[in-house]
Amino acid sequence: MTTTVIVGGVAGGMSTATRLRRRDEDMEIIVVEASGYVSFANCGLPYYVGGVIGERDELLLQTPESLKERFNLDVRVGTRAHDIDRAAKTIQLTGPEGTTTQAYDHLVLSPGASPVLPPIDGIERAYTLRTVEDVDVITAALDGVKKAVLIGGGFIGLELAENLTHRGVEVTVLEFSDQIMAPLDPEMAAYVHQHLEKNGVTVLTGADTVEIAEGSVTLRDGRVIDADMVVAAIGVRPASELASEAGLEVGERGGIVVDEFQRTADPAIFALGDAAEKRDAITGDTTLVPLAQTANRHGRLIADIITGRDVTSRLTLGTAIVGLFGLQAATVGWNEKRARAAGRDIRVVSLHPQDHAGYYPGASQIHLKFIIDAATDAILGAQAVGEAGADKRIDVIATAMRGGLTASDLADLELAYAPQFGSAKDPVNMAGFIADNLANGEKSFLHHELEQAVAEGWKLVDVRTPGEFNRATIPGAVNIPLDDIRDRFDEFEGEKVLAFCRVGQRGHTAVTLLENKGIEAANLNGGFLTWEAASSVNAV
Amino acid sequence: MTTTVIVGGVAGGMSTATRLRRRDEDMEIIVVEASGYVSFANCGLPYYVGGVIGERDELLLQTPESLKERFNLDVRVGTRAHDIDRAAKTIQLTGPEGTTTQAYDHLVLSPGASPVLPPIDGIERAYTLRTVEDVDVITAALDGVKKAVLIGGGFIGLELAENLTHRGVEVTVLEFSDQIMAPLDPEMAAYVHQHLEKNGVTVLTGADTVEIAEGSVTLRDGRVIDADMVVAAIGVRPASELASEAGLEVGERGGIVVDEFQRTADPAIFALGDAAEKRDAITGDTTLVPLAQTANRHGRLIADIITGRDVTSRLTLGTAIVGLFGLQAATVGWNEKRARAAGRDIRVVSLHPQDHAGYYPGASQIHLKFIIDAATDAILGAQAVGEAGADKRIDVIATAMRGGLTASDLADLELAYAPQFGSAKDPVNMAGFIADNLANGEKSFLHHELEQAVAEGWKLVDVRTPGEFNRATIPGAVNIPLDDIRDRFDEFEGEKVLAFCRVGQRGHTAVTLLENKGIEAANLNGGFLTWEAASSVNAV
Repeated sequence: MTTTVIVGGVAGGMSTATRLRRRDEDMEIIVVEASGYVSFANCGLPYYVGGVIGERDELLLQTPESLKERFNLDVRVGTRAHDIDRAAKTIQLTGPEGTTTQAYDHLVLSPGASPVLPPIDGIERAYTLRTVEDVDVITAALDGVKKAVLIGGGFIGLELAENLTHRGVEVTVLEFSDQIMAPLDPEMAAYVHQHLEKNGVTVLTGADTVEIAEGSVTLRDGRVIDADMVVAAIGVRPASELASEAGLEVGERGGIVVDEFQRTADPAIFALGDAAEKRDAITGDTTLVPLAQTANRHGRLIADIITGRDVTSRLTLGTAIVGLFGLQAATVGWNEKRARAAGRDIRVVSLHPQDHAGYYPGASQIHLKFIIDAATDAILGAQAVGEAGADKRIDVIATAMRGGLTASDLADLELAYAPQFGSAKDPVNMAGFIADNLANGEKSFLHHELEQAVAEGWKLVDVRTPGEFNRATIPGAVNIPLDDIRDRFDEFEGEKVLAFCRVGQRGHTAVTLLENKGIEAANLNGGFLTWEAASSVNAV
Repeated sequence: MTTTVIVGGVAGGMSTATRLRRRDEDMEIIVVEASGYVSFANCGLPYYVGGVIGERDELLLQTPESLKERFNLDVRVGTRAHDIDRAAKTIQLTGPEGTTTQAYDHLVLSPGASPVLPPIDGIERAYTLRTVEDVDVITAALDGVKKAVLIGGGFIGLELAENLTHRGVEVTVLEFSDQIMAPLDPEMAAYVHQHLEKNGVTVLTGADTVEIAEGSVTLRDGRVIDADMVVAAIGVRPASELASEAGLEVGERGGIVVDEFQRTADPAIFALGDAAEKRDAITGDTTLVPLAQTANRHGRLIADIITGRDVTSRLTLGTAIVGLFGLQAATVGWNEKRARAAGRDIRVVSLHPQDHAGYYPGASQIHLKFIIDAATDAILGAQAVGEAGADKRIDVIATAMRGGLTASDLADLELAYAPQFGSAKDPVNMAGFIADNLANGEKSFLHHELEQAVAEGWKLVDVRTPGEFNRATIPGAVNIPLDDIRDRFDEFEGEKVLAFCRVGQRGHTAVTLLENKGIEAANLNGGFLTWEAASSVNAV
């Protein structure tokens, strides 16, 4: 009989354990969890704080007892694993009943990650949210709290901002950088920012917190924000101490280094989940992706490998989503910032289609952005923000990326259409059409290239109706409505025309018309809406 | 200047026309539409009947005038195209102002399809729904209608059944075959059948209508059903007469034969949309797929080809969806019936996961079924029925199929997860896990193989709890709960065990446990729920 010890009993660890048992009824499987709970719904914790999930028991998917009964697992909660002796193949386990030396044939490290706590004066006053114990502490402390500050504008911080608002707490989010939701590009994050504000959350970007005191938080610029409660949700750091103390390699971002079999340099020791490095799907470089889906998948993989299957892990796209006051914001792969930082030659496609046919009631707008490799037409990444259907489109794009489809291939996807669910030309198809146009030479400027283009002599033409133009337009634009272009051709003679409309579609038609007539023309990517969103960020 | 004449001004025809204009400002583009309306929302017609779409204008996306202004198109409604002279490259157009002979350089045939009207006595009393004129006739006739009969249990018939119900009409659906929703397998169609009945629609399968009289419909078995209104929605037949009269080839299903450039044997004549044949993505064989998405896509393609691009059309998956009283039913590719008829060696995976994490409020069950090529693990098709998220999963699967991913590859898809939107192991991932298990030798029987298996000596074991077992089980099953198996091993000695639970998951764990202990074991695909759904169909 062989023994596998698994450190960490949530997503990755428990997936490893149950799959191991299904593959080997005779193996001794010991799961060690530092907290008091295993297999809990960590992604549900903010929603329990907000009362969206009413019963605490809903968070507890399994117990040591149920796992013993179903899978014959030896699950030890409240137990800390330490001091791996790789030569002897033993590990020390310290639990309620003392410390024991446990031998292993295979050791699986899935201890997760720890909240990052920046060196702010009084940081010890800040709560964090990572475990069931944390949620108990926060909910107990909430009584009487009127104002809360959340440090960190990432996924979990914002989920908590929503949920505290549901509890009647006035919430301020303090984000150090110049935008919330780092996985999104700024003009896409702007939609989330606006939506949070609309729902009563105060969001401060460029907010450098220097002190947390009783009842307030102070920023570097001197502003003082009242706060009965402060939660730090700045991010997580891989819990890789156990590995590094055992002499196993840890990458520069702190993740345990593993190969494509999720194996460390020690063939008996595997690592996965938030504690381990992943490999990025675009470049194969190491990255950190603290997502439950990946952890679960790698758990199954490790169990397969330990029990003799020849399988390897896939590269990671990092697909993620957050729901905030009914708004969905989802991403996959790289954003524009990252592609630019990597020096890639890219094309960008932004569009603002309806989530379903406009003639069917209840359609809402989805803001979509694609990052495309200019050399290969490969999809590098995408972002979607909207009240409905953003999840579906990002899932479709993630699948297309996994299948190696190009951006232009998206035009040919056959997606399920009835007017409640999409359009005969789905938003993803539309993106494919635009990508195909760009790949075939249609010119397009991005909102942040506009100023430069105008400086280089491009004439900025708003091709919307006079009514739209008069309500608001881009400074410096002249108005020549699309349907008037054929009659007002003389106004374009000798010009280079940068056309724009509300979302880009009329702009595209204008560009084709002008190009057909021998006038150099380009479209503004994403139209007025993308420009407006980007401007709103700068205005914050 | 060249001239393109396009016959048919809805999805495919109008996509051709607008794309042509974007590619060539100087071309003469004439669009001929027999009905009084172009570019109308044909998929919205049933919803206007039901009042879901309140304004008739919502259905009319463009007018001849708006298309003249925006795209300089010569759109002629109420105009019939006839008598193509291929040698002279002319076509006769008969409209309100008489008949003219129109020369063309390219002719594009997109006349759509006509409702199939079976040879039933009194069929002329039946309404059909295909055009704006049809919807006007039906809505005008609805006044005072208390009972309606819909002949045909396909997508459009059922959409109309829902919408007439919304109008307070008592609806009976008469379906000739033994199940509604032919693209679904029977046990999947059963969920739709039950849902319609639950919402007050009477659904009769095996209903052979022999006479439509004033106020009633008579079936072959003698039953008479009261009906103030009868609508025939049996299906459509390609409107290929214009092509066949011109000597162009028409396939055995009635579709105009085209090559991968959507071109007929006459290089100047193209065809697309419901009137033209498609090529099936699984085999490349000809098929008919009357879907708007395909028509739009092929319109863009034909415009590109006419204007000199070297592009070809893709094979067709036939992705489709219908929403009925809040239930979604979606399909892509082949169903089991079709795969069996084609003699394919297949694996089937049925599962019943929640659309999102069970611990987050509002989760509902999705019934999912996959048809997988046993030799290659290729996904041949899938079906999904549920109150939420069926559209998303079918879109993901359609994209995976387009990208050439195998069924097992679905395990590795990175789909956007937060508890409102999915699960850390998404339903599609779960299907991938099951497919991977089957590909690696786990045995599984389908519900329709159960009787045969039991006859061959498989012991049927219900591994659910005694409570579940006592409420309802499969006749002949014994109850040995999963968590008791380790203690009751002696009861399995020498047996071949066919295990089942509610959805298949506990059954799988039981099978792995037994197989690990050297006992031959198999799981019942889809568990009790699939068996129950299949039984409900047989009972109808």
